[in-house]
Amino acid sequence: MDEILVNQTLNQIGSQAKRAAAKLSQLDTVTKNRLLNQFAAELVTRTPTILAANQKDLRAAVDMPAKFTDRLKLTEQRIKDMAAGLRQVATLPDPIGNLDRGWTNEAGLLIEQKRVPLGVIAMIFEARPNVTVDASALTFKSGNAVILRGGKEALNSNLALANTLRYVLKQAGLDENIIQILHDTSHQTADDLMHLNRYVDVLIPRGGAGLIQAVLKNATVPVIETGAGNCHIYVDQFAEEKMAVDIVVNAKVQRPSVCNAAEKLLIHQAAAAKLLPPIAKALEAHGVELRGDQRSRAIVSSIKPAQDTDWSTEYNDLIMAVKIVDDEQAAIEHINHYSTGHSEVIITDNYQNSQTFLNQIDSACVYVNASTRFTDGFQFGFGAEIGISTQKLHARGPMGLKELTTTKYVVRGNGQIRK
Amino acid sequence: MDEILVNQTLNQIGSQAKRAAAKLSQLDTVTKNRLLNQFAAELVTRTPTILAANQKDLRAAVDMPAKFTDRLKLTEQRIKDMAAGLRQVATLPDPIGNLDRGWTNEAGLLIEQKRVPLGVIAMIFEARPNVTVDASALTFKSGNAVILRGGKEALNSNLALANTLRYVLKQAGLDENIIQILHDTSHQTADDLMHLNRYVDVLIPRGGAGLIQAVLKNATVPVIETGAGNCHIYVDQFAEEKMAVDIVVNAKVQRPSVCNAAEKLLIHQAAAAKLLPPIAKALEAHGVELRGDQRSRAIVSSIKPAQDTDWSTEYNDLIMAVKIVDDEQAAIEHINHYSTGHSEVIITDNYQNSQTFLNQIDSACVYVNASTRFTDGFQFGFGAEIGISTQKLHARGPMGLKELTTTKYVVRGNGQIRK
Repeated sequence: MDEILVNQTLNQIGSQAKRAAAKLSQLDTVTKNRLLNQFAAELVTRTPTILAANQKDLRAAVDMPAKFTDRLKLTEQRIKDMAAGLRQVATLPDPIGNLDRGWTNEAGLLIEQKRVPLGVIAMIFEARPNVTVDASALTFKSGNAVILRGGKEALNSNLALANTLRYVLKQAGLDENIIQILHDTSHQTADDLMHLNRYVDVLIPRGGAGLIQAVLKNATVPVIETGAGNCHIYVDQFAEEKMAVDIVVNAKVQRPSVCNAAEKLLIHQAAAAKLLPPIAKALEAHGVELRGDQRSRAIVSSIKPAQDTDWSTEYNDLIMAVKIVDDEQAAIEHINHYSTGHSEVIITDNYQNSQTFLNQIDSACVYVNASTRFTDGFQFGFGAEIGISTQKLHARGPMGLKELTTTKYVVRGNGQIRK
Repeated sequence: MDEILVNQTLNQIGSQAKRAAAKLSQLDTVTKNRLLNQFAAELVTRTPTILAANQKDLRAAVDMPAKFTDRLKLTEQRIKDMAAGLRQVATLPDPIGNLDRGWTNEAGLLIEQKRVPLGVIAMIFEARPNVTVDASALTFKSGNAVILRGGKEALNSNLALANTLRYVLKQAGLDENIIQILHDTSHQTADDLMHLNRYVDVLIPRGGAGLIQAVLKNATVPVIETGAGNCHIYVDQFAEEKMAVDIVVNAKVQRPSVCNAAEKLLIHQAAAAKLLPPIAKALEAHGVELRGDQRSRAIVSSIKPAQDTDWSTEYNDLIMAVKIVDDEQAAIEHINHYSTGHSEVIITDNYQNSQTFLNQIDSACVYVNASTRFTDGFQFGFGAEIGISTQKLHARGPMGLKELTTTKYVVRGNGQIRK
């Protein structure tokens, strides 16, 4: 469907991806792992070429902010890190071919539910060249062809990286279109990719809130929403002071720019006078700007007034909004209303309150007495991460290799017909 | 997002559904089962009211074809059948609260992946009032609020049925907005529902290909695509004649109007001269019109010429297209190109050919030596079915209660922070 919206080149790319995916789906694990290690070796070999391409991008980005160019910049060490990432993915268990379950039905059919690749995965991302390699590693290991559309500012770097991987595929006699990258980085082509329903099995956007919202609003291909994190910590009446200070500080300041950093602090009214001052002091010592409601400002005078928009804003910065709540139920209602459904924490020593919070909070990850910063594929022990899903369909929370697969039912009979 | 596209009434309905879903998600299994049985009892009690409402719809549909009015028509027996369906859902295991897996990570956090409801499920369906009850039963048991948008020709019937269920909810002191039905059956409102991203966790369309395609093309809320079935049977060189005849006839004629009926017959060239005549004879004896390629028509002269469009058409009727293929690989390529990814069968006694077919066919259900008609939640043993997914994301194949759920990660710590 929707071919009319899609320019011919993108249709060709889609068709090539589908053909490549069919062959890749049959490739054995040993061969896939060998190729992942060859990807790594070839990246290191081509370091000068890759850095030269990256220099072109960096020269064109000379007027961009330092934060931007830092993400764009490749170094010898960063290429080594990407190679190490590829070798690490080679060591992970391959989900393809696993049986989720199997049974014999009343008619005597043996029914097995078997893990298979999704097929063709499209990714739209910003000017971070490492995504080209990281995403290719995970989609390749899980048996999927990938269509990459990176930010235009990283095009030379992305092409140098993708061409390295494609060269290895070709040398091995495989279809190089297992990994494709769009040379055309126009908005129109990104929009067309969002409508390439005939070929794209799932589209995963990776980047800021603007990119994610644009994809959600426009795409007709299936999408996995990732990375929006307006994460909350609720300090209950029965919280232990040192634990509350340590967790709130860690969740806010350890890496404020990422989606699993905490953005909001809710405190039970009965504990606020005791617990808010030491928490606020510790946060401010780390340079955190606090914005709060009237009740919190009455306790700690350095807290600035919060606006209505603060409650729904993901700062990704050293800012935290504070609110005093009447009770746990008020905290839960506030969170379920304003949260992006990523990660929420209760700090408490009360059993019943911990249970209520775990049951009633509607987010991908709900914690008792731990930092939100653990919502991460590596921290969870998956050995890899393609992103953190904040939607409910297909995958929720950190996504590893298994989340890049689907299943099919394999049914063996001996002549059964339906009565 | 997209609130600007949505009229106020629909926003209210969505907001009510979300509130109702939060409470329903906490309801225990025993209470849900008791209510399902009370739904059943109240439906039977209200039989005269429901039939009177249905008569109104039937009088307005007097000029519609018999096939249409047959689906629209309710009888005392059909209401009893709906009640029996509700009682059957009450007997099924409740997926909510199950743990899919659990482990302790390196930091000592106990991580559990727990089954929870999706939240708010929207359904768009055609003039089949039984969907109102069947869908409400499955969404209720799996802890989800539902927003139903049925065909305008069945509005009086759907309202009478939904109001019966809502009355039972209210009598039990529960939120009646667990089950809501749109009174406004305009296309605009259906379109708005497809863009109600703020409240709708998944939209499941049920109906013909036109409805499904319209939803896929327009919706920005997550969708599960159901019911498109261009199903193939490949009769291999090593097929047993009687089995081939029995399975092809059963798959084509037992219920030709449904999505798991076979639409296409592919036969290996080396077996065609022997097997096509008896298969064609048996199909024609059941009134099936055959359309074929030149090679099949050279063997059985009664076969009409097939057009290019035949290969991609789902007839849902006593029509079958026939093609002679050079070998198994040609059959697999044809199927993966033209199939809707629903159900495909190989009939063979050759081990290697059965393995190749099972591995390389990219469809929800792949069979050896059995009828496509088994692709069905009840036949699979799920005890219920909300539809058959032909997409790869979230659910693939027959969907029961589990496919109406998602998971969340519940994480218990004792003060862990990220290093």
